[in-house]
Amino acid sequence: MSLSDVKALTFDVFGTVVDWRGSITRQGEALGKARGVSVDWAEFADRWRGGYRPSMDKVRRGELPWTNIDALHREILDELLEEFEITGLTEDEKEDFNRSWHRLDAWPDSAPGLTRLKTKFVIATLSNGNVALLTNMGKYAGLPWDCILSAELFHHYKRDPEVYKGAAQLLGLPIEQVMMTAAHKDDLKAARETGMRTAFVPRPGEHGPDRDIDTTNEDWIDVYASTFEELADKLGC
Amino acid sequence: MSLSDVKALTFDVFGTVVDWRGSITRQGEALGKARGVSVDWAEFADRWRGGYRPSMDKVRRGELPWTNIDALHREILDELLEEFEITGLTEDEKEDFNRSWHRLDAWPDSAPGLTRLKTKFVIATLSNGNVALLTNMGKYAGLPWDCILSAELFHHYKRDPEVYKGAAQLLGLPIEQVMMTAAHKDDLKAARETGMRTAFVPRPGEHGPDRDIDTTNEDWIDVYASTFEELADKLGC
Repeated sequence: MSLSDVKALTFDVFGTVVDWRGSITRQGEALGKARGVSVDWAEFADRWRGGYRPSMDKVRRGELPWTNIDALHREILDELLEEFEITGLTEDEKEDFNRSWHRLDAWPDSAPGLTRLKTKFVIATLSNGNVALLTNMGKYAGLPWDCILSAELFHHYKRDPEVYKGAAQLLGLPIEQVMMTAAHKDDLKAARETGMRTAFVPRPGEHGPDRDIDTTNEDWIDVYASTFEELADKLGC
Repeated sequence: MSLSDVKALTFDVFGTVVDWRGSITRQGEALGKARGVSVDWAEFADRWRGGYRPSMDKVRRGELPWTNIDALHREILDELLEEFEITGLTEDEKEDFNRSWHRLDAWPDSAPGLTRLKTKFVIATLSNGNVALLTNMGKYAGLPWDCILSAELFHHYKRDPEVYKGAAQLLGLPIEQVMMTAAHKDDLKAARETGMRTAFVPRPGEHGPDRDIDTTNEDWIDVYASTFEELADKLGC
């Protein structure tokens, strides 16, 4: 099987397609301004995102029944509001702020790159975000997905193999005809172990200016690109 | 709940969005011409479509394990090739002809209407077609879906209530904020019983010129429209 057999590209979303940190920080600042709350919203965003992996791992280990990301985000939010001493928000305001994860801005090259990739490949999300979140985000950020695939459809979170295998099955393709695209090597490694092809698009700004990110290529990665536009170039779109 | 609360529209696809009969007939004729086979391809299309409901009902009654539409279509195709005495097709040709269901042409108003409806609502398929079929068809026919929802995700075929309820759940919406759009009243009735809103868009040409189709409005239908463009008008898009 060569790369020319690839028919579909699946994409990690948080960090790979969209800038969750900048987007959550901006929405936090807007809420803070409206409600006269002054906290470090970038730190708030980091902590919110940071809480998601342990919650998800509880689901993966079976300590929690299947719980989607909207619900996990809400649990973490309630804890953080208390810790950051943000009081007086109505239930509607909390729910709307929780849905700020549905309104994340894409990196500048994401929509133009996806639009080119879509001319040659089926392009689908393959994210731990739930279907509603990914659908709403696609509309908000103008991402031209052919199909929304989510861990929610398999009741398994990445990096469980069921997610990658389930995606290829729903796309009706042998798994080696599907290429996982992500900014995170552990996601790509797990995809590769199931037989998927891999494209690494590092996003050095994902965690802000002060965090070092591993952007080096690896010999087991099929395609390395700095942007989705470069990925489109390399895949002949 | 009034119609102004509707946030998402789900669509039946075969017959409602695309002209399966004309499309299968044309692809059959092309195959027949290439292989020197002369049969009544409109009749072939009708029989192929006609075989799908009994096969699906076997799955619904538990007589068959979950089987997706691609596989059901293929079983029916193999029977029909024998019955119509079409011999000498290679396995690749049969498989490609089976995938003619992924390449159905939309009614002329479908893509323009959906493009308008998408500005105000989440628009999603809700079809018995499998995810791959619907995804490929969306690309082929230029249908700007926000999300591909399919009976395959629930391992239940319409008109089972699990399909409608499951769709609202994946969209993250109370079921009364979702409107089912279809050319078939039994689909709308089943949707309505679960709490969905309903839009009826009859397609008098679905079964060809010689079949009478019930196009009358009913008092339990929320919106009646002759085309997707008229539906967009009526829903204020």
